[in-house]
Amino acid sequence: MKVDILITNGFVATMEGNGVGMIEDGAVAIKGNKIEAVGPTAQITRNYTAERLIDAKNKLVMPGFVDAHIHSGLAIIRGVAQDMSNWMQKGIWPFMKHLTVEDTVKGSMVNIIEGIKAGTTTFCDYDSHMTDIVQNYKSIGARARVAEMVNELPPNSGDLEVGELYSFNPAIGEEKLQRNIELMERYHETEEGRITCILGPQGPDMMSLELLTEMKGLAEKYDSKLHMHVAQGDREIDQMVKRYGKRSVAFLDEHGFLNDRLISVHLTEATDEETEQVARSGAKMIYCAGSIGIIDGIVPPMLKFLESGGTACLGSDQAPGNNCNNMINEMKFAAILNKVRRANPTVFHATLAVRSATIEAAKVMGIDHEVGSLRPGKKADVILLNLEDPTFTPVITTPVRNIIPNLVYSARGHEVETSIIDGKIVMKDRKITTIDEQMAIKEAQQAANNMEKRAYEDILAADSDILKMMEDGLL
Amino acid sequence: MKVDILITNGFVATMEGNGVGMIEDGAVAIKGNKIEAVGPTAQITRNYTAERLIDAKNKLVMPGFVDAHIHSGLAIIRGVAQDMSNWMQKGIWPFMKHLTVEDTVKGSMVNIIEGIKAGTTTFCDYDSHMTDIVQNYKSIGARARVAEMVNELPPNSGDLEVGELYSFNPAIGEEKLQRNIELMERYHETEEGRITCILGPQGPDMMSLELLTEMKGLAEKYDSKLHMHVAQGDREIDQMVKRYGKRSVAFLDEHGFLNDRLISVHLTEATDEETEQVARSGAKMIYCAGSIGIIDGIVPPMLKFLESGGTACLGSDQAPGNNCNNMINEMKFAAILNKVRRANPTVFHATLAVRSATIEAAKVMGIDHEVGSLRPGKKADVILLNLEDPTFTPVITTPVRNIIPNLVYSARGHEVETSIIDGKIVMKDRKITTIDEQMAIKEAQQAANNMEKRAYEDILAADSDILKMMEDGLL
Repeated sequence: MKVDILITNGFVATMEGNGVGMIEDGAVAIKGNKIEAVGPTAQITRNYTAERLIDAKNKLVMPGFVDAHIHSGLAIIRGVAQDMSNWMQKGIWPFMKHLTVEDTVKGSMVNIIEGIKAGTTTFCDYDSHMTDIVQNYKSIGARARVAEMVNELPPNSGDLEVGELYSFNPAIGEEKLQRNIELMERYHETEEGRITCILGPQGPDMMSLELLTEMKGLAEKYDSKLHMHVAQGDREIDQMVKRYGKRSVAFLDEHGFLNDRLISVHLTEATDEETEQVARSGAKMIYCAGSIGIIDGIVPPMLKFLESGGTACLGSDQAPGNNCNNMINEMKFAAILNKVRRANPTVFHATLAVRSATIEAAKVMGIDHEVGSLRPGKKADVILLNLEDPTFTPVITTPVRNIIPNLVYSARGHEVETSIIDGKIVMKDRKITTIDEQMAIKEAQQAANNMEKRAYEDILAADSDILKMMEDGLL
Repeated sequence: MKVDILITNGFVATMEGNGVGMIEDGAVAIKGNKIEAVGPTAQITRNYTAERLIDAKNKLVMPGFVDAHIHSGLAIIRGVAQDMSNWMQKGIWPFMKHLTVEDTVKGSMVNIIEGIKAGTTTFCDYDSHMTDIVQNYKSIGARARVAEMVNELPPNSGDLEVGELYSFNPAIGEEKLQRNIELMERYHETEEGRITCILGPQGPDMMSLELLTEMKGLAEKYDSKLHMHVAQGDREIDQMVKRYGKRSVAFLDEHGFLNDRLISVHLTEATDEETEQVARSGAKMIYCAGSIGIIDGIVPPMLKFLESGGTACLGSDQAPGNNCNNMINEMKFAAILNKVRRANPTVFHATLAVRSATIEAAKVMGIDHEVGSLRPGKKADVILLNLEDPTFTPVITTPVRNIIPNLVYSARGHEVETSIIDGKIVMKDRKITTIDEQMAIKEAQQAANNMEKRAYEDILAADSDILKMMEDGLL
C-alpha cells in the first residue's frame, strides 16, 4: 500500500501499553494526517511504500509531547519574574498591564517555536486573547487545544495590596466569556481538527460563583472540559477563605465542579485529603513542575493524585516563572522533585515522566483517541530525536535499555531533529518549515523593546525583589 | 595595541564583583592564552585591534563554566542507573566490573564534548585511570583540573551484601595512589598550565586511615587540594560508623582533614551542625544537584554551608545517575531544589547559580586567579551564547534585566555557539574544532556495544529495580 511518509529503522517508543511500547527496529507509516501502521521495520516495509522515506537509524521515534498547560501569551515577558516573593502581584502584573494583544501574539509565536524545537506537538494553551493567539497555531501548523482564560478582575487588580480581596466586574467577566464562546464557535475542530477549543475559567478565586456556574452550564452545552487553576497558590486559598469561608476544593465540590469535566491545574496548596477527593471525583490534574518550583518552591501532590487513582500529566506553564516551555525540562523536574518530596529515588521513574508528557497528557485533555501514542488511526504527530547526540551516547539495549532514562534525564531538546504534526513535516533538520523563525524572533524582540519602555514606571513602583537585585548589580 | 581575538558588542557578564558584573555593550580582548582587556566596546575598540574579530551583537559573553566535579570515565554507562535503590551496588558496579580503560577513555571523550557544547570550559575530573583520561583533555583543548580517584577496595567489593563492611587491600590502595602521584608528576601544569592535577581520595569509607593520612602528607608536599567525597550517602555513613564508631565529619575532624585543603563533595548526609563545622574549617563544598536528586532524592545542605560562611559551587557528577553533564542543568536544579528545600522561592537566585558555576567554582578548586571571571590577566576561557534563540527571547534590559534569569531557567546549552579555551577557539558555530566529534561518538558506541555483552550476566544477577523495569516493558 502506498502511504505518504514511511519512517524506518528507528527505536520506536509507541507509548502504547503500560510502559513505553518500544519497538527496537521499528517503522511508522503515515497517510494523510493519520498513522496508518506501526510495527517492526521488516513487516512495515513489506506492506507499505512511500515517496517520502525517512531513515530513522540511530533515532528515537515517538509521539510528540503534549504540553497540557501553557500560557504562551506571557512569553513576551520571559525571565522578568522569578527568585521573588509575590510573583503575580509584583512580578508579572506590572508588566501585563502594558501588554498589547499584538505583544501577546508575537511572544506566543516564539514560545510555540521553542516548544516545537523541544518536541512539543500539542499545545494546550490557556490565555487571554486566544482568538488572536490561535492564529499562530494555524500558521505554524502545531496541534492546539486552546481555552480563553476567563476572569472577572478589573484591570487595576494588580494594584491591590497583597491579601486584599479582589472585586469582580461582571461586564469584564461577560466580555471574556464571550471571547471564550467566540473561540469555541469559530475555531473548534478547525484546520481538519488540528485546532480544538475548551472552556477556561481562570480560577475559583478570580470570578463570581455566578459566572463559574454559567461556564459549567456551557461546558455541558459544548461537551467541553473546564481547564482551570485550582488551589494554585496560597493567594488563591486566602481569597477563597476570605470570600466564601472555605478552601477551593470544598467550594468546587459544593457547587458540583468535581467531576471528569474538570482539569484542575496545579493543586499546589491541596492537602492530601483534598488531592484524594479531586482524584476520586474523576477530575484530572496537571502538574507544572518547573513553574511551581520556581514561583513557590513547592512540589504539588501529583504522586498522591496518581495513588488515589487519578489521571495526571505535565505542563510547562508560563515563560515568566519557569522560564522555559520545554517538556523535557518538565519531565526531569517532575521526576527529581517528586523523588525529593518523598526522599526516595524510586517513586517517580523516567517512564512515568514520558507517559505524563504524552499519553497521560492526552487522556487528561480528552484527546487520547487522537494523540499521545503511535497507533494506527491516531493523528500523525511524530518526533524524531538524534540518538547520536552526546546526550544520548552510548545507546545500550541489553539487558537494560537506557534510551528512555536518557531522554528524561540527559536530553535537552536540541536532539529533536524532525517534527511531524498532523502528517505534515513542521520541522526538518531543526528548521521550522512553515514560518520564518528569525522574523518571529525579531518581531517579538521589537515588541518587547517598546513594552519595556511603557512598563518602566510601573516596574519601579512595584518595588519587587527582582528590581532590588537589579539595583544591587546582581543581574 | 594588537591582540589575537577581539570580541565586541556583546552583553558581557564578567562575573567580577558580587553579582554578574554585566557590561551591556561590552568587549573582550584576548592575547595569547590570556585576557588582555575587558570593558565597554567603545573603549576597547579604541585601544585594541585584532585579526580575528568576533561580533557578539545579541550574544551573551561570559567566562566558561567550571564543572567542579565530574567522573567522565563513567559516561560509557550513561543512563543505566537511575530510578532505583542501591544505585552504587546494583546500578553501576555490575557494569563497572566490565569496563576496560579504553571504554572509560572513549566514554569520557563524549562527556567532554557534551560539556563543551553546553559551555563548560574547565573540567574537574575525578576518576580512575586519569593518566589515560587526561589525554582527552590534551587533545580536545579543554581546561582540566584532574585527580586520580584513590581507594583501597578489592574488585569484588561490588559483590558484597548491602551493609557489609568493605575490606581494604593495601596493595590496591598503593597502586592507585601511585597513579595519582604519577598523574601529578607527569601532567601538573602541562599544556601551558591548561592541565593541572590534584589528589583524589575517593572517600573516608573507601580507604584505610593510613592511606588517607599518607595522602594528607602528599597534599602538603605537592601543595595540592584533596578532592574527596564526604558524607556522600547513607552507605558511607554506615561504613564509617561500623568501622570507626563515628560519622565522616567527626572522623575527618579528629584526623586533621578539616581545613582549606579539603574539597568536600556532596555532604548529602551532613547534619546542619556537621555542615557548619566543615564550612567554618575553611574546607570547600561541591553540590551536585541533579545527581544527588536522582540517586538519593535529597537536597544537600549547600545553603547552610554558604550561610555558615563557606565557599561552595556546583558539579555535574556522573552520567549514570544525573544523567547529563551540563552546567546549565545544574544551575537550574540547584536553584529550584534549594527553593523547595526551604519552601521559599527567594533563597537561591539565578545569580547565585551562575556564580556557583563560574567564579565560586574557581575559588573552590583553587583556580580563581586563572579562571571563573573575565578580568585582564586571567586565562582566556570565554563562551558566547546566542540571545536570539527562542529560549532567550526577548531580551529585556530596563528597569530589570532578564538575561541571567533566562540563562539559568530557560537556556538548555545549545545556545552556546562559541567556546574559547586558553585563547583558542575550541568550538565555533557549535562544531568542535579540535577533534572529530562524530568519530568520538562512534567509538564510544562501539565500546559500549562490546561492554554490554560482557556485562550481561552480571546485570541479570544484580536483580536491580531497573532490570525489573526492563522486564516489565517499562523501558
